[in-house]
Amino acid sequence: MREVAVVGIGMNKWGELWEKDLRDLYVEAALLAINDAGVDHVDSMYIGCMTSGLFNSQEHLGSLMADYLGMTPIPATRVESACASGGIAVRMGFMEVAGGFSDIVLAGGVEKMTDISGDGATFALATACDQEWEAYNGITFPGLYAMMARAHMKKYGTTREQLAMVSVKNHENGYHNPFAQYHLRPTVEDVINSVKVAEPLNILDCSPITDGAAAVILTTVEKAKELGKPIIKIIGVGQATSTIALHAREDIAGMDATRHAADMAYKMAGKKPEDIDVAEVHDCFTIAELVVMEELGFIERGKSGPAVEAGETKVGGRIPINTSGGLKSKGHPVGATGAAQIYALTEQLRCNMGVCQVEGAKVGLAQNMGGSGGSAVVTILEAES
Amino acid sequence: MREVAVVGIGMNKWGELWEKDLRDLYVEAALLAINDAGVDHVDSMYIGCMTSGLFNSQEHLGSLMADYLGMTPIPATRVESACASGGIAVRMGFMEVAGGFSDIVLAGGVEKMTDISGDGATFALATACDQEWEAYNGITFPGLYAMMARAHMKKYGTTREQLAMVSVKNHENGYHNPFAQYHLRPTVEDVINSVKVAEPLNILDCSPITDGAAAVILTTVEKAKELGKPIIKIIGVGQATSTIALHAREDIAGMDATRHAADMAYKMAGKKPEDIDVAEVHDCFTIAELVVMEELGFIERGKSGPAVEAGETKVGGRIPINTSGGLKSKGHPVGATGAAQIYALTEQLRCNMGVCQVEGAKVGLAQNMGGSGGSAVVTILEAES
Repeated sequence: MREVAVVGIGMNKWGELWEKDLRDLYVEAALLAINDAGVDHVDSMYIGCMTSGLFNSQEHLGSLMADYLGMTPIPATRVESACASGGIAVRMGFMEVAGGFSDIVLAGGVEKMTDISGDGATFALATACDQEWEAYNGITFPGLYAMMARAHMKKYGTTREQLAMVSVKNHENGYHNPFAQYHLRPTVEDVINSVKVAEPLNILDCSPITDGAAAVILTTVEKAKELGKPIIKIIGVGQATSTIALHAREDIAGMDATRHAADMAYKMAGKKPEDIDVAEVHDCFTIAELVVMEELGFIERGKSGPAVEAGETKVGGRIPINTSGGLKSKGHPVGATGAAQIYALTEQLRCNMGVCQVEGAKVGLAQNMGGSGGSAVVTILEAES
Repeated sequence: MREVAVVGIGMNKWGELWEKDLRDLYVEAALLAINDAGVDHVDSMYIGCMTSGLFNSQEHLGSLMADYLGMTPIPATRVESACASGGIAVRMGFMEVAGGFSDIVLAGGVEKMTDISGDGATFALATACDQEWEAYNGITFPGLYAMMARAHMKKYGTTREQLAMVSVKNHENGYHNPFAQYHLRPTVEDVINSVKVAEPLNILDCSPITDGAAAVILTTVEKAKELGKPIIKIIGVGQATSTIALHAREDIAGMDATRHAADMAYKMAGKKPEDIDVAEVHDCFTIAELVVMEELGFIERGKSGPAVEAGETKVGGRIPINTSGGLKSKGHPVGATGAAQIYALTEQLRCNMGVCQVEGAKVGLAQNMGGSGGSAVVTILEAES
């Protein structure tokens, strides 16, 4: 298996981008990544996108994006695993390069979520849960994550304030990210007093509806050296599934797919949780970040609330999480999020994060998941010193 | 790169399956494939599906299918490239085994197309063309392929009767396939007198709306030998793209993505068109089979019509095509079609095709495409003698 490096990254300013369509968004991020890598072609492409069929009445993104990038006839494949689509696109690109099938792969993700009217986005996102057992009966994602939050609070004593502190931290980080959708600095009180969505989650506990894209260029370490780029290697990847419906899960205060994906990635990388210097995790709701911290082994089970309260996950803390602002502040164009996590970690490992730079960061971990945790992908990056 | 073999195949009887849902269809085909292979687990899974979001309000098929197969936490990824989704799922599985990432992979496809009401299926399928330039302006797939037919007729003198003969041949083959949606034996006159859809294409030139799934088990040749299965190797795969919109294509009487994908597959396999004993190609409309025969190099450009008329593509002819009945007679559950082609070729190479068996068939080729040919995947199989 060949060693793989991230040599180029690109993303747009995320938000409600009324003047851009699906193809504009992806092409822009892809060209930025290609330009950053300094390559004159790519051999293959993976596009993560959750539901452009429902959001934009457009499937067949491989052909669409290869076409609009002027890259036909290269192979181009869209992968979908709900909100884990972008992370899985990167994993597919990794396998294609590591396996020797291609030398240079463009892997990214996109979602254009604001083209749909009324409560269309809520309906479209609900296709990530079990349609027949969950969505059809009226539950949507805030409700599912609210149940997880209640379970975690009951089982481990996690407090409402600790949930809010995740939002406050991520917004503080995102305030410094020029690409983030929001540049707000809410307080714990602001979060607790914000509009209720699904008890105990308020609007400031929820990631937003976002238009955006992100892309990375993957190649061999050998080729990365030729290109004169800093060597940021992908040293571990893992992907796993769990039940699609929350009610079928053994423990709804946990997320077993993330645990399994992390185990695979740690094993491949030869690393342990304590070796990770910085992480981007899937904080679609504040509770998700807490549960995920535990499943990744960053903290003992049930202790994530107090750890956030103690500042362990802030920049400068023991294990800084979501220094890019996370899904909460940066935004969550669902298919793009996983690729944007790799963007953010690469910036960290290149020491480009400004006030959010984690000093001496060498090893970063990205955790991206779909649905209520029914799929997860974990990627570990390491900067060659 | 490790050698890869198809050791298990499964599919349902296709048709309008009102009593089965999306997950039922896929799980049934997958279990049949697993049973056929005689394996007790799989390491990973790829699911080809075009637009379960629009057809069934259900995305996130990786989690859904791993869950309902009782296979969590294995990695499970849905791939989409319109009607080429199933073929691409098999290519992904091939890369995962060949690259040494997994030993046993389940690759398949599914589409449940009859759950949508009114003209919903036509709308859903149109998301495979360019929404902004084509679908929005009212054209749908029969119209796009009708333009290709007109161009081929004008440029090469292909006749209406020759188009009809593709349908007659495929229905004759499908008549003997117990899994086929239709067991009809139309004549050339029947096709020509059937309901007009888009001049010159009539209803009997068009593949139908179908519910169905198909799946295959891929493993190393070494493991296939341990399992005591006939060794059917995947010796070549190719995937390519073209413009998503037909108007942007250099020649609408050709399909360049298929040509490029075939070039890749032939090169990897070390084979030429004349080495192929039997083929399954993407006859979504009768004209498609003619154009594809030319792009695969089975016949000189512009000569496909006379070749069909001369019986060259019948069972017993020079290069039998769509001995399973093809999309026309077997049905076209869009995400499943590419996987079902591998099913059919494996049956040929195992000498299980009964009256449609091609005597002495050793090398088979599958060609699966999306949209109006904006993406294509070609797979070459060889039976070890």
